[in-house]
Amino acid sequence: MHFDHAGIATADAAELAALFSDLLGCTIVHEEEFDGMAVVFLDLGGSYLELLEPLGDEGTIAGYLDRNGPGIHHLAFATDDVGSALDRADDHGIEVIDEEPRPGAWGHEVAFLHPRDTGGVLVEFVEH
Amino acid sequence: MHFDHAGIATADAAELAALFSDLLGCTIVHEEEFDGMAVVFLDLGGSYLELLEPLGDEGTIAGYLDRNGPGIHHLAFATDDVGSALDRADDHGIEVIDEEPRPGAWGHEVAFLHPRDTGGVLVEFVEH
Repeated sequence: MHFDHAGIATADAAELAALFSDLLGCTIVHEEEFDGMAVVFLDLGGSYLELLEPLGDEGTIAGYLDRNGPGIHHLAFATDDVGSALDRADDHGIEVIDEEPRPGAWGHEVAFLHPRDTGGVLVEFVEH
Repeated sequence: MHFDHAGIATADAAELAALFSDLLGCTIVHEEEFDGMAVVFLDLGGSYLELLEPLGDEGTIAGYLDRNGPGIHHLAFATDDVGSALDRADDHGIEVIDEEPRPGAWGHEVAFLHPRDTGGVLVEFVEH
């Protein structure tokens, strides 16, 4: 696998995208509304920052912002087979959040693991 | 710039390195004791995970673990000129933690920005 992206929870994806674009020299490569969020992907040479802004008071990221404030939410690793990656997680006794790959932002297949079993890191497997 | 690594605070770098190596198919590319920490870099195809384990009760990562528990601590972006990157941060009115580049782990030059001004993300500039 290789590193794919870091997901960042924010109350203002457009503002943060403008700051990071200038500060880090990255460019907006994809934007959409997905699952009640404004999602912006910034390209950093084949890896990405995924900015996640909730569009209402409900949902995972809105809850995360309430509890933790803005910041790094998850790390995503690219694989060509999310199902096999989930099987390997299961072999390690890691609790999965998604039993099966599901559609994620940008048309990807994704699955998340429970951070309790992965050193406090919310791990996402992503298949482009 | 391109994405260089995610820094992860952990109470057991060796155990987490073994888990991630198997789960993500990454390999240990560098290990050292640095600034009161056991530091392990895992290679993920040109990007890295940097595992940070405090070797005592003092220091930034020990304090982080006390306050937050284990998890993602910072994101690092590679540049060939940390000083210029700091100047650009200053142009944006971003508070810097390091006024000048300083020696980091693995022989790198590094500087950190205050997360308050970067969307809650602890940003590191790193020059290999």
